[in-house]
Amino acid sequence: MALTKTQSRTAAAVTGALPTTMRALVKERPEPGLVLKRVPLPRVGPTDVLINVRKAGICGTDAHIWDWDKWSQHRVHPPLIVGHEFMGYVAATGDAVRAVKAGDRVSAEGHISCGVCLLCRTGQEFICEHVQIIGVDRDGCFADYVAIPEHNVWKLDPAVPDDWAAVFDPLGNAVHTVMAAGVSARSVVITGVGSIGLMAIPVARAAGAARVIAIDLNAHKLELARSLGADEVFDARTPGLREKIYALTNGDGADVLLEMSGSGAAINQGLSMVRNGGRAALLGLPSDNVSLDLAENIIFKGLTVLGINGRKMFETWYQMQAMLTAGRIDLSKIISHVLPLERYAECFTLLKEGRAVKIVIDLTNKDG
Amino acid sequence: MALTKTQSRTAAAVTGALPTTMRALVKERPEPGLVLKRVPLPRVGPTDVLINVRKAGICGTDAHIWDWDKWSQHRVHPPLIVGHEFMGYVAATGDAVRAVKAGDRVSAEGHISCGVCLLCRTGQEFICEHVQIIGVDRDGCFADYVAIPEHNVWKLDPAVPDDWAAVFDPLGNAVHTVMAAGVSARSVVITGVGSIGLMAIPVARAAGAARVIAIDLNAHKLELARSLGADEVFDARTPGLREKIYALTNGDGADVLLEMSGSGAAINQGLSMVRNGGRAALLGLPSDNVSLDLAENIIFKGLTVLGINGRKMFETWYQMQAMLTAGRIDLSKIISHVLPLERYAECFTLLKEGRAVKIVIDLTNKDG
Amino acid sequence: MALTKTQSRTAAAVTGALPTTMRALVKERPEPGLVLKRVPLPRVGPTDVLINVRKAGICGTDAHIWDWDKWSQHRVHPPLIVGHEFMGYVAATGDAVRAVKAGDRVSAEGHISCGVCLLCRTGQEFICEHVQIIGVDRDGCFADYVAIPEHNVWKLDPAVPDDWAAVFDPLGNAVHTVMAAGVSARSVVITGVGSIGLMAIPVARAAGAARVIAIDLNAHKLELARSLGADEVFDARTPGLREKIYALTNGDGADVLLEMSGSGAAINQGLSMVRNGGRAALLGLPSDNVSLDLAENIIFKGLTVLGINGRKMFETWYQMQAMLTAGRIDLSKIISHVLPLERYAECFTLLKEGRAVKIVIDLTNKDG
Amino acid sequence: MALTKTQSRTAAAVTGALPTTMRALVKERPEPGLVLKRVPLPRVGPTDVLINVRKAGICGTDAHIWDWDKWSQHRVHPPLIVGHEFMGYVAATGDAVRAVKAGDRVSAEGHISCGVCLLCRTGQEFICEHVQIIGVDRDGCFADYVAIPEHNVWKLDPAVPDDWAAVFDPLGNAVHTVMAAGVSARSVVITGVGSIGLMAIPVARAAGAARVIAIDLNAHKLELARSLGADEVFDARTPGLREKIYALTNGDGADVLLEMSGSGAAINQGLSMVRNGGRAALLGLPSDNVSLDLAENIIFKGLTVLGINGRKMFETWYQMQAMLTAGRIDLSKIISHVLPLERYAECFTLLKEGRAVKIVIDLTNKDG
Repeated sequence: MALTKTQSRTAAAVTGALPTTMRALVKERPEPGLVLKRVPLPRVGPTDVLINVRKAGICGTDAHIWDWDKWSQHRVHPPLIVGHEFMGYVAATGDAVRAVKAGDRVSAEGHISCGVCLLCRTGQEFICEHVQIIGVDRDGCFADYVAIPEHNVWKLDPAVPDDWAAVFDPLGNAVHTVMAAGVSARSVVITGVGSIGLMAIPVARAAGAARVIAIDLNAHKLELARSLGADEVFDARTPGLREKIYALTNGDGADVLLEMSGSGAAINQGLSMVRNGGRAALLGLPSDNVSLDLAENIIFKGLTVLGINGRKMFETWYQMQAMLTAGRIDLSKIISHVLPLERYAECFTLLKEGRAVKIVIDLTNKDG
Repeated sequence: MALTKTQSRTAAAVTGALPTTMRALVKERPEPGLVLKRVPLPRVGPTDVLINVRKAGICGTDAHIWDWDKWSQHRVHPPLIVGHEFMGYVAATGDAVRAVKAGDRVSAEGHISCGVCLLCRTGQEFICEHVQIIGVDRDGCFADYVAIPEHNVWKLDPAVPDDWAAVFDPLGNAVHTVMAAGVSARSVVITGVGSIGLMAIPVARAAGAARVIAIDLNAHKLELARSLGADEVFDARTPGLREKIYALTNGDGADVLLEMSGSGAAINQGLSMVRNGGRAALLGLPSDNVSLDLAENIIFKGLTVLGINGRKMFETWYQMQAMLTAGRIDLSKIISHVLPLERYAECFTLLKEGRAVKIVIDLTNKDG
Repeated sequence: MALTKTQSRTAAAVTGALPTTMRALVKERPEPGLVLKRVPLPRVGPTDVLINVRKAGICGTDAHIWDWDKWSQHRVHPPLIVGHEFMGYVAATGDAVRAVKAGDRVSAEGHISCGVCLLCRTGQEFICEHVQIIGVDRDGCFADYVAIPEHNVWKLDPAVPDDWAAVFDPLGNAVHTVMAAGVSARSVVITGVGSIGLMAIPVARAAGAARVIAIDLNAHKLELARSLGADEVFDARTPGLREKIYALTNGDGADVLLEMSGSGAAINQGLSMVRNGGRAALLGLPSDNVSLDLAENIIFKGLTVLGINGRKMFETWYQMQAMLTAGRIDLSKIISHVLPLERYAECFTLLKEGRAVKIVIDLTNKDG
Repeated sequence: MALTKTQSRTAAAVTGALPTTMRALVKERPEPGLVLKRVPLPRVGPTDVLINVRKAGICGTDAHIWDWDKWSQHRVHPPLIVGHEFMGYVAATGDAVRAVKAGDRVSAEGHISCGVCLLCRTGQEFICEHVQIIGVDRDGCFADYVAIPEHNVWKLDPAVPDDWAAVFDPLGNAVHTVMAAGVSARSVVITGVGSIGLMAIPVARAAGAARVIAIDLNAHKLELARSLGADEVFDARTPGLREKIYALTNGDGADVLLEMSGSGAAINQGLSMVRNGGRAALLGLPSDNVSLDLAENIIFKGLTVLGINGRKMFETWYQMQAMLTAGRIDLSKIISHVLPLERYAECFTLLKEGRAVKIVIDLTNKDG
């Protein structure tokens, strides 16, 4: 784990009664699996904040790292503490930290941008080319403590429950996608209702969508989609589905596509359902190249296609906070499990077997 | 009333069992008052549609014409049938009409654009410089029949009640203002809750506003505003109101101002409540010049100020339809009276004495 | 050739000294080739304009129709007069025509929109789903006369030479693409410098591009590209070309891609050269599906990809006129040949053998 | 002068052979005038950069501070080193500085934003409510050395001459205004051609304006405006000027207004010249309230009015750099004088008597 120059001090220099070691879920070696073990507390630089993690969400990316798939082998360099979705309390601050103080209840943006490139300097740091992601490129949050630049810390509104604050990262993906697409008074098709696709349903409703149509292959998820506010839900394999969508949208096609599956088939199906002049926001990451009928589905239609990555720093966070504090979004049905850190293996099993929607790890039982 | 070349034929040429005369509320002479009398049916050109009016909304503009105020004296040329908000059924069509047919249940855009200027040819015909407004510049809809170009006709969705369809014109003003401002996940201040300001409340909520704050001088309207979904309502004379708005918006100020009063004091107050980088949409029409602190309230703040006129033709109509058919807007509390045409004098009295919110004239009792 | 209801009258009804027959380049049968023959003048409906064609541009689409390729077999229904780029003088007008009169010097938009769909009613008629294109879906302009709705006619500024006015259709494609992408103060890569790609170079310069880089396989076209104002030109096969583009753009990548080739390889290469957060406007039409690395080239990058079709009606036309009358664009180097109608076969040969850039057919020699 | 926490170290801690005192132009007491004197070098915090100033531009704001006008009395707290436009070389860096190093040739954004408010965290730090401006709220650049946060430093391209780099602040105002308005293929009216208004002319041309019309009261400035690329120039008092502008813009009115004067009369005149649906960007700061015909000039017209403040950080800087390195802008005619620091009194006299356009102070003669 390469540390930046400003992370060269130990926590000891900046804190008082902190423990010297902590629990952490670690990818120790380049092979499948994760290990729960005690490790030293992270070092805290002058512009960093040390956060005592209370709740942390498990993401599909974490499962990829557990599995040590092709992507992980290429990207991740063990040893590494995994995890990037979390909330907690500030335990200590570096001496150049200005606006965050010990005791603050916080979540954080896990994308550490470089701060000096074109993108960082033009309000687009969420797509900084030199980004480092916690739990992927540097130590993450499946641990009692995580260190992160003050710049990345988000102070929580008291109205937001801990479990919801723990999943601001994926909720932010949903909010970013919905807001980039623009859904006010529009009909919206969502392809893929995994946990982010499901979150996108109440988010799109809160953001003003006039009609939300969810498409997936999983009947259970579609049922959940409906209970979260989808006006219509469809199995992607329904015969004549494109025509049904057109019939539901006055024969014009949907105004907006939110692609949340990363499946090539879903991308093509989704694009075929968007009306001329419509907008498609792509968040789901295909693992391979996708063959597209560009002429028919994008060019003739005059479509606008948006690649969506991460969360706008920090416009998305303000939007998320506005929706949550206004009571427009309810995540309780999406967080299916809250389990203590020690049961981490069970969490990954539940997730990989499709028996969970969103799992939150609880780190409050000790060491907090 | 100057007719265009295409309006040179009589209805006789295009219809069957139509009566030869009809009831109409007419400004006969350049003086206060209106007269209910029988007049010939309007002539219908080849690209025109003749509509049997069922319900029609009364607007403040109609009251100005009744009063024969300065603006009316300058703009209106009697004799003229007044009224511009309505719904009804198509009775006859000119022979070049292509997509509307007798029996269609319709409303219509009352701004007749020229069709050939820069604005008409670039999707901005709602601000056509040569616009003619029905009930102002040419015969209007407070009559059993009105003739209007096919281009301006809007076919109604069966889900929309007649009384609501009769007020698509002012509802469209509200939708246009809200959508131009952009309210998704934003805090919104509305200054002035007359009938359009009141409509803007459910519209802003439907369009995704995270918080709606209504400001007016009329306690009854503010109460109604709250019942329509305003999160907070304030008397404009409340001491320290600007600070209260800032406190409600994390100290930043409101993201968006929707100015619906036309009062100079309200415009200044509203602008002072918008945050740096915010947006202000001005719909209310000041009767005189307004003195503004441009440096403090617009330039230093980096504000975007939008002049709003009419309804986008026909983007606003599609948005309005989407919101209504999705059941996101309820107008029942705003339409305070539905009265037959013969009681027109009572309608204007109610309106001018501030005892009504929105009055719909019912023309179905006879002659329909 | 299916005529609309309003095209049911003969020209005889509306004109005086017109001939009864005219020259026309016709696809007579479903097979390769075109035939120059005499045919009756087109019928002119009440809202139509009859134009005496003086100059007409040949497009790649015309060559496809000559060749009777797969696309043509599917789309075109002989007999049909081909050609869709032209200028001329108004010879006659239908009796409901309001703003165009005999003698006007005009060009015209060849996309005949339906006028009543969602897109036509929201300022996006250029992507009307029911569009009919002259020379493809209904009779075109390689003839002494062509009939077209008044709505589609564009009056020419005297400052625009005939030969340039004849190619407003492809020039409009270039202007639409450049303006949709937004090039002010940005670095622009153009992939594919056929005639539209070449036009895009001075257009991008006129629209404010800070740097224009042209990429193609044809050395002659690249040389022409440079003479038209490209700051850098590259053979697409240059080793390490992506790195060279990054080096030319401060290591960030190009701000904007204008894809004008329709080649899958060029689309992938072009997308790889755009910086994070950049914009790509796709005008070139791939003949087959294209395999894209969506994750790497669009999603992670946060790219905005725009499908571009036709010309905005008529925003693009106003922009084109503004650039031309300001003297910011010079097309003389792009129009390589002006040949009389009788030499049509030679024109198609020159075009297909790559010996011409843009060919204009001259119809003024007789019958005009 | 209130120093932030991070400015608590002396330069001595971070540099080698620096002098201990320097020349500085200082507002010593709350009264008219400035004093050239020797003062200690500024203190440099861990995230700060110490810059050896070579060239510095004089702004109207500096003249206001000299005069000790009402605004200055309210805003400025002596003692203060004035000046905010400059270029120079990095002399030393704080120990947390990451991307800037001694010897770098730089300019800098003089607006020091707080970094933690809503605006700073959403890409709009140029309108940070807590902004501090160098030379106004904290020590400025009319001195041999100035300290500024690394965040604000802009590394210069070698292609940009020193004198031009010294005026990036006002040039950035012009670029920000032009780019916010959007001028590609549009007609542009500029009201007020002081030094920023003059800069806006080549900037608008470079950004793609199709026609630039300059309006002022000063014949010499208008002559200069024409030589800088204005297509038309007018004395604001020309009878029938509004009609002339409409005649020059096909009877529609100008697409865009760039208001650079701050004069109420010019603002009203300028707004009256913009077409329906047009855009007006206001940069000039009125000293008092301005009375506007909102109904006629903004609301009915459907105008978009933009308040413009400072420069986008740092999008404007990238745009400015792109235009300059592409050779699209030439500032030589605008910089009328380059004079040594010791002749500062003469500079202010020239400026106040209207005998200069833009004056650059040269600090290279000694102490550099």
